[in-house]
Amino acid sequence: MSKKEMKLIRSLKNKKERNEHGLFVVEGIKAVKELLSSPIKPHSVYALKKFDGINYPAIIVSAGEFAKMSSMKNPQGILACARKPLRTLNVSELKNEITLALCGVRDPGNMGSIVRTADWFGIKNVVCSDDTCDIYNPKALSAAMGSAFRVKVHYTNPKTFLSGAKTAGIPVYAAVMDGENIYKTKLSPRGIIIMGNESKGISDEIRALADIKISIPSFGSAESLNAALACAVICSEFRRRKT
Amino acid sequence: MSKKEMKLIRSLKNKKERNEHGLFVVEGIKAVKELLSSPIKPHSVYALKKFDGINYPAIIVSAGEFAKMSSMKNPQGILACARKPLRTLNVSELKNEITLALCGVRDPGNMGSIVRTADWFGIKNVVCSDDTCDIYNPKALSAAMGSAFRVKVHYTNPKTFLSGAKTAGIPVYAAVMDGENIYKTKLSPRGIIIMGNESKGISDEIRALADIKISIPSFGSAESLNAALACAVICSEFRRRKT
Repeated sequence: MSKKEMKLIRSLKNKKERNEHGLFVVEGIKAVKELLSSPIKPHSVYALKKFDGINYPAIIVSAGEFAKMSSMKNPQGILACARKPLRTLNVSELKNEITLALCGVRDPGNMGSIVRTADWFGIKNVVCSDDTCDIYNPKALSAAMGSAFRVKVHYTNPKTFLSGAKTAGIPVYAAVMDGENIYKTKLSPRGIIIMGNESKGISDEIRALADIKISIPSFGSAESLNAALACAVICSEFRRRKT
Repeated sequence: MSKKEMKLIRSLKNKKERNEHGLFVVEGIKAVKELLSSPIKPHSVYALKKFDGINYPAIIVSAGEFAKMSSMKNPQGILACARKPLRTLNVSELKNEITLALCGVRDPGNMGSIVRTADWFGIKNVVCSDDTCDIYNPKALSAAMGSAFRVKVHYTNPKTFLSGAKTAGIPVYAAVMDGENIYKTKLSPRGIIIMGNESKGISDEIRALADIKISIPSFGSAESLNAALACAVICSEFRRRKT
């Protein structure tokens, strides 16, 4: 591989470069397989050797070259560079669905777990504020597993998005610490659920756009539930009502 | 501080040494405060300076000494060494409660998150197989936050424990991939919930001890839900029925 290629792949660890080039990197056999069987277009695959089940023509690199490219502690010897899909968001298409809106989720592990949770519960779209963690961050991708290639993750202005949703008649729920008991609240089978930042929660401005504020009741002494865990409990509760 | 003290504190990053000395280390202002206001006995506190709200006589150390002791990326300049509490487990005391049984949860982040979830949902005891991650692992403590000092985490032989619970008439539930739909299963307000290893799940031997196998239905394409997320959804569902 050329020095230019190496420089490009290495630079994609940073969000700025991922956005600039419209590319991202996934690592590991399972993740590369899932990428290649998804609608996302691969740009190039680099590997130490030929791997079974990988039908894309991989560029064989040396162990030294691979180590320079990898972000993993225990690299598996294969990574793919792929084009970031262009997502278009049409609010009217969300009318009959549950959609997540993330406002300032910062931890890559939480971000990936939330996208994996969305996939589990059949949520097709996750709409994120620009200060939410990039789903193409290597740690977020690793926590999301293949779900990052199936769930549509959008980055946009949450105020504009939520205002549009309200105009379209879609109910907006916000997960807050002082909301209604989610177990006792009437939940619509369609709607938008806002999840806020890990420590600051949801800003007043965004909170004002919510129709219904919901909380998971506490039965013990923990100050809070981690953002991804709270999101899983809330998604489960929305889905349960439909079954 | 003496060389011997430094060696001891540094050694407590390892489970073997924590068990040998019956000690563990917590880091950060909030965690040290929570430790000092818990029933757990502190052994010693080391800090770069006097911190407000810390009423324990801290040993002031140099920046170089602190850096050698710390496991954190961005150390806050305070850590405490504390005695591991001795836990006694009396199965008959679990008769009217929900208890978690962890069989082979390995990831420290998951371990900590599960203990935090238990605390949120008012679960007082978490009973772990010996191959489950040590709750006093620095990363597990950090994910559990103060919950690690409130929830009683026990390490024991799960087969013996579960057999005893069955004899005592406590219903045993197991979270598996092919169980009954948890939303439609009758759940007891008391019982033991078994959560298995992140990739292998619950062994056949342990599974055979469960009265009821439960699953969270999938609505999408994700292969699985992360162990901590699944645990939160299940605990929520048990608690919801009581409200």
